[in-house]
Amino acid sequence: MPQQSRNQKIKRFFSWGIAEIYPSKEALEKALKSGKKLKVYYGVDPSGAEIHLGHAVCLRKLKELQDLGWEIVMLIGDFTGRIGDPTGRSKTRIPLTHRQVLENAKTYKDQVSKILNFAGNNPTKIKFNSEWLDKLSFKEVIELSAHFTVQQMLERDMYQERIKKGLPIFLHEFLYPLMQGYDSVVLRADAELGGSDQTFNMLCGRTLMKELKNKERFVITCSLLTGNDGRKMSKSFHNTIPVTDNPFTMFGKTMAAKDEIMISYFELCTDIPQEEIKKIEKDLKNNKVNPRDVKARLAREIVTIYHGSKKAEKSEEEFNRVFRDKKKPTKAKEVKLSKSKWNITDLLVKLHLAQSKGKAKRLIREGAVKINNKKVSGLNKEVNLKNGDVVRCGKINFVKVSL
Amino acid sequence: MPQQSRNQKIKRFFSWGIAEIYPSKEALEKALKSGKKLKVYYGVDPSGAEIHLGHAVCLRKLKELQDLGWEIVMLIGDFTGRIGDPTGRSKTRIPLTHRQVLENAKTYKDQVSKILNFAGNNPTKIKFNSEWLDKLSFKEVIELSAHFTVQQMLERDMYQERIKKGLPIFLHEFLYPLMQGYDSVVLRADAELGGSDQTFNMLCGRTLMKELKNKERFVITCSLLTGNDGRKMSKSFHNTIPVTDNPFTMFGKTMAAKDEIMISYFELCTDIPQEEIKKIEKDLKNNKVNPRDVKARLAREIVTIYHGSKKAEKSEEEFNRVFRDKKKPTKAKEVKLSKSKWNITDLLVKLHLAQSKGKAKRLIREGAVKINNKKVSGLNKEVNLKNGDVVRCGKINFVKVSL
Repeated sequence: MPQQSRNQKIKRFFSWGIAEIYPSKEALEKALKSGKKLKVYYGVDPSGAEIHLGHAVCLRKLKELQDLGWEIVMLIGDFTGRIGDPTGRSKTRIPLTHRQVLENAKTYKDQVSKILNFAGNNPTKIKFNSEWLDKLSFKEVIELSAHFTVQQMLERDMYQERIKKGLPIFLHEFLYPLMQGYDSVVLRADAELGGSDQTFNMLCGRTLMKELKNKERFVITCSLLTGNDGRKMSKSFHNTIPVTDNPFTMFGKTMAAKDEIMISYFELCTDIPQEEIKKIEKDLKNNKVNPRDVKARLAREIVTIYHGSKKAEKSEEEFNRVFRDKKKPTKAKEVKLSKSKWNITDLLVKLHLAQSKGKAKRLIREGAVKINNKKVSGLNKEVNLKNGDVVRCGKINFVKVSL
Repeated sequence: MPQQSRNQKIKRFFSWGIAEIYPSKEALEKALKSGKKLKVYYGVDPSGAEIHLGHAVCLRKLKELQDLGWEIVMLIGDFTGRIGDPTGRSKTRIPLTHRQVLENAKTYKDQVSKILNFAGNNPTKIKFNSEWLDKLSFKEVIELSAHFTVQQMLERDMYQERIKKGLPIFLHEFLYPLMQGYDSVVLRADAELGGSDQTFNMLCGRTLMKELKNKERFVITCSLLTGNDGRKMSKSFHNTIPVTDNPFTMFGKTMAAKDEIMISYFELCTDIPQEEIKKIEKDLKNNKVNPRDVKARLAREIVTIYHGSKKAEKSEEEFNRVFRDKKKPTKAKEVKLSKSKWNITDLLVKLHLAQSKGKAKRLIREGAVKINNKKVSGLNKEVNLKNGDVVRCGKINFVKVSL
């Protein structure tokens, strides 16, 4: 890699999507410029299988490090995921079987490979933390926990809030940062990268690494992408754009993004240089450009990353035909069915318009399901389909049925 | 056992030395009256080897339960003792080797057998908690810890005080009650007995037993014996009367007890019925009795328990001769030495007047050491002994040297 290009890449790395760097930006810059092959890891929660643009912020930062020659480790928290909350008293964590976790991890790799390299001379490595956490004894847990004080744990905002509201903090929740910290120790990673909501856990790992291995570990926290509702993009808020969305859906969902969040999407989800984004922002402010056109550019850029420029162009044409010009879609996706009579929830799953029966029911309840532009209501409705019927879920997902 | 006698024993049990009973006195009384052989355990900290009258309060309560037919388990915390505080940031716990712990446990049994039966048809059982705690996995620790909230742990007075003072609470300290609770679960004990300073930990065990085994476990907390300094009797405060003290020393130390604590010693360290103690208390208040005579009775009662009535009588005679009548001791313990020149600290250890060089130095510093009634000062002093010299440590410990 020519020196010039390397320095440009480093400059680009620091220009977008980073919330904080520990111990400092300067130290990380020095490490990157040295050209040494450092190891960075990114831990993923295997409680679900969907990778969306929110995760992609971190993954795209990792890709930049991979291109700069760093070793990338994707850590699947199969230990954490299997344990979940054993009391069932927290709604956020559901215990999973190891099989489920490994199943989720399989699709992860497929999805993540849209961004990171898993082949070539510097391939991403995948590790599972059950490998070492399963073996950890009580004695070792006690030794690890003696590196932290209760007061340090309580400093975390979310705990302070819970205490104020009189909500319980279960003791095992204090043990989670230990696991994450122990991962660092075992992986002997030089850096950990994650969403800025993971800062506390990552800093616990940094402390442990310092105390046990006398090693200064970098912690790189990334900006969080928000959904249309202003909350962090997360599957549990139903506000995601999954990287596996088809080009047209991805284009449409991006077009549905509110104007306020557009600029952050330019920064966190595209490859457009910061100077250009600054200009777009200024032009928008001064009404020099039409927001709709700017959003179309955003959607094109995003679809190009995951599906290539040709599909992005086609998605835009189709989007304009259907939503701007109110014309019929040129070709809806067609699915061949073997029978005409269907229970509506089964049908939505069969047509891949809903990922599960639960999701199908939610969509029906929300009034998002239409057959030939007629709204479907009733969760257990039987429908009778004819060849050429169009089944729709929301504005941009539809399938033409062939019988 | 005739019913009458059994009821009397039960009445006696509730009459002294108990701080609290969970869930209630009534429930425990019912269990005792049922005649069922329940299992009670008492955990001992193997950080030192000395059993003193403070421990004896709990042990003598256990003996009453043993006499009522309950199964007694003495649990040696060899897991806890070995771990101690791995960071060395707490002064209260010193990590020990398993060998040290087992060594301490050996002398425990000898000492405790002065109170509890280790033979006969209902012998005390000894268990070591490393047997199950060594095998506990991280997953199991997390599952156990999910039964408790951080708020429950923080309710403990000592933690509130530390938070107020800005002193750290290390995370592993929150894990100790879990161990104690897990002991209960493994032992399937019906009851745990301990000093009232252990109430919090024992109640954690009770919670765990309820949640994991749906079993109501009794918790019996015993009154704490205070030393002459008003603090809990504890080796670390140098205010103990060990059960292994020789009769004369034990008699003398009891005679040195302050008048204010005398009545609590009658209650917690002798077999005298409560009504009689109440009368003694009243007589003392009304100046009907001489406190010195009352204290002599106390000392006699205590020495009788550990050494029999004959030795108690002889100790009293000797004590009166030396301290009341200011006569020479009839016969001091004689130790044959092979040389006449000694470093003073080595000498004190050799003569068993001090348990360690550190303790010997402390005694010299306190001015407690005399040779032929002449005070010895200087920690590294060389002394030259003659046959018949008397070496003294404090008022009541002395040895006659033979050369």
